[in-house]
Amino acid sequence: MDITVVSTRADALKDAFRGELAARVPDDVSLRFYSDPKILDVRALAAEVALGAPDVLAPLLASMPKLRWVQSTWAGVTPFFDVPRRDYLLTGVKDVFGSSMSEYALGWVLAIERSVLIHANAKHWKFRIDRGLSEFRVGVAGVGSIGSAVAQSFGGFVKEVRGLNSDGRMAEGCGSCFATSDRLRFAEHLDVLIMILPDTPATDDLVDAELLAKLAPGAIVINAGRANALDLSAALSARASGQIRALVLDVLKKEPLIDDDPLWSTEGVYITSHTAAPTRMASIAGVFLDNLQRYRTGVPLDGVIDFERGY
Amino acid sequence: MDITVVSTRADALKDAFRGELAARVPDDVSLRFYSDPKILDVRALAAEVALGAPDVLAPLLASMPKLRWVQSTWAGVTPFFDVPRRDYLLTGVKDVFGSSMSEYALGWVLAIERSVLIHANAKHWKFRIDRGLSEFRVGVAGVGSIGSAVAQSFGGFVKEVRGLNSDGRMAEGCGSCFATSDRLRFAEHLDVLIMILPDTPATDDLVDAELLAKLAPGAIVINAGRANALDLSAALSARASGQIRALVLDVLKKEPLIDDDPLWSTEGVYITSHTAAPTRMASIAGVFLDNLQRYRTGVPLDGVIDFERGY
Repeated sequence: MDITVVSTRADALKDAFRGELAARVPDDVSLRFYSDPKILDVRALAAEVALGAPDVLAPLLASMPKLRWVQSTWAGVTPFFDVPRRDYLLTGVKDVFGSSMSEYALGWVLAIERSVLIHANAKHWKFRIDRGLSEFRVGVAGVGSIGSAVAQSFGGFVKEVRGLNSDGRMAEGCGSCFATSDRLRFAEHLDVLIMILPDTPATDDLVDAELLAKLAPGAIVINAGRANALDLSAALSARASGQIRALVLDVLKKEPLIDDDPLWSTEGVYITSHTAAPTRMASIAGVFLDNLQRYRTGVPLDGVIDFERGY
Repeated sequence: MDITVVSTRADALKDAFRGELAARVPDDVSLRFYSDPKILDVRALAAEVALGAPDVLAPLLASMPKLRWVQSTWAGVTPFFDVPRRDYLLTGVKDVFGSSMSEYALGWVLAIERSVLIHANAKHWKFRIDRGLSEFRVGVAGVGSIGSAVAQSFGGFVKEVRGLNSDGRMAEGCGSCFATSDRLRFAEHLDVLIMILPDTPATDDLVDAELLAKLAPGAIVINAGRANALDLSAALSARASGQIRALVLDVLKKEPLIDDDPLWSTEGVYITSHTAAPTRMASIAGVFLDNLQRYRTGVPLDGVIDFERGY
C-alpha cells in the first residue's frame, strides 16, 4: 500500500514526525514523504492514502484519483469542503487538541483575572486582591470533544460551566447546554466566553453585538475556534465600552495579521498566532497509525468527518 | 460575650467584612471592631475572643488576659509563635486558600509555558509551538490542605505530581509523597517546583543549590509559601545559569520589596506582591462564624494550630 505524506512543516518537526511514522508503520506499507505539494511524482498522486494539512491536501484531491482515505493533521477541515469531491473518507484529529486548548483558555483567563500580566511587568510592590474564578460563569461555545475537555478543565475552578452546540445536546463537563438557536440565553451573565466553534455557515457571526451585550459587564472573550464566528467590529466596540474587559484572539479572518494592524496595540486585545491548539506531530502520528490499523482491518476509523454536518 | 475584631485592611474590604460578620453574628454576642491596634479600649483588651491578622494580634496577647480563642485571618501564623503565651486556642484559615493558590500556580505555569507573557506583549505574528504541560513532572513542596488542592488542580494537565511534607505521608492529588529528609529524591527531574512550605526551623533553606540542581533543566520554580524556605541567592544563580527558566516569587524575606531592588528587573524573575492566596474577607467571615458556633456549643474548632508542630 502506498501512502503519500505531504508535510510542509519546519524541519525539526518534520523530521520528528517522519521518524515517528517510519518507526511504527507496518513493513508492507510504503510511506512517501513530500515537503512541497507542487513537486509530487506519479506514485505520490497514485496513492490510496494521504496524510497532511487540509490547506495542502485539498487542492491535490483532483489529481489523486485512487485516493480512498485522507487523514487531516488539523481539527479544522474547511479546505476540503471547498473542493467538490466526496468519494473518500476524511478523518480529522479530534482528541489530541483538548488538553492544549484547555491550557490555552485557562492560561489566558488566569493571566487576566489573577493579574499575571500586570505583575509580570510590575516594577514596584502593590498588594491587590483579585476576585478569582470561584464565582465565575463560563460558557464554551462549540462543545464537541475539544470543548468538553475545556469545560472539564474549568469545572474545578468556577461556579458554573455552560455549553453551546448545534442542538443543545449535553456535553461532559457542562452543567447545562444550549442550542445555537438559544444562543442569547446561553450568553446571559457569562464572565468568560470561550469560542471554539467550527467554520460553518451556521456559525457566521454567531457571537455578535446582541450576544456580547448579554455577557456580564467586564467579561473575558476568547476566540480560539474560527474567525467567522465572531463579529470582530462588534467585539471591538464591546471592548472599547468596557462591556468586555479582554478579547483574546487566536484566529483572524486574514492570517497572519499584518504588523501594521491596529489590533496589535488595542488595549485589552491580545493576539496569539493560531497557537491555541497546535498540531503536535507525535500525537498526530499516533492518531494516524491507529487509524491505519483500523483501515487495513476494515474497522470504522476514528474522527470521520461528516461532509453534511461540516465537522 | 465580647469579641474584639482588629482589622487594619483597606476601607472597602473592612466594610464588607464588618457587614458580613454583623449580619450573621448571634444577638448575645458583642462584636467590637478596631482598625488601629494602638488604640484599643478596656473592653477590647478584656475580650474572650479575638479575630484578626497574626502580625496585629500577636503583640496584643500580653495585654489580653481573658483571651481564650484567637481566630487568625491568615494561613501562616508564625507571629504567634514568637510570643511565649500558649494558654489559648489558636485557629487558622486552612481551607479557603486552596483554590486561590491553585489559580496562582497554574496561572503562572501556563503563562510561562504557553507563552502568554510573550504573546501579550507581541507586536507581530509569529507561529510557535509550546511543549505544553502534558509531559510535565510537578512537585508541590508543602502538601497540607492547600498543597493538596494545588496538586489536584495540576493533576488533569500533567504527567506526574509529587508531594513533599514532613513525614512523607500521602496527600490527595499526589501520585507519590516524600519526607523532607528525602527532599533531593523528591526534586529529581521536576519541570515545576511549587513551594507552599510553612515557616518553621525545619524548612529554612529547604530549597537550596543542591536541590535546585536536581530539577529538570529549564524548570519553573514558584515560591508562594514562606521566604525562609528558599535560598534566594542559590535560586538566582540557577536562574542565571538557565537551570531555572523562571522564578516566581510571591514571598520575600523583606516585604514590601523596595523599588530599587534589582529583582524587579532580573530576567526570568517575576515578583507578585504576596497575592497568591489573598485573604478573601467573606470566606474568612464564614470560617469564623462557623467556628464561633462550635466554640459556643463546645464542639472542637476547625483549623486548630498545634504549637508544637508549628502549623
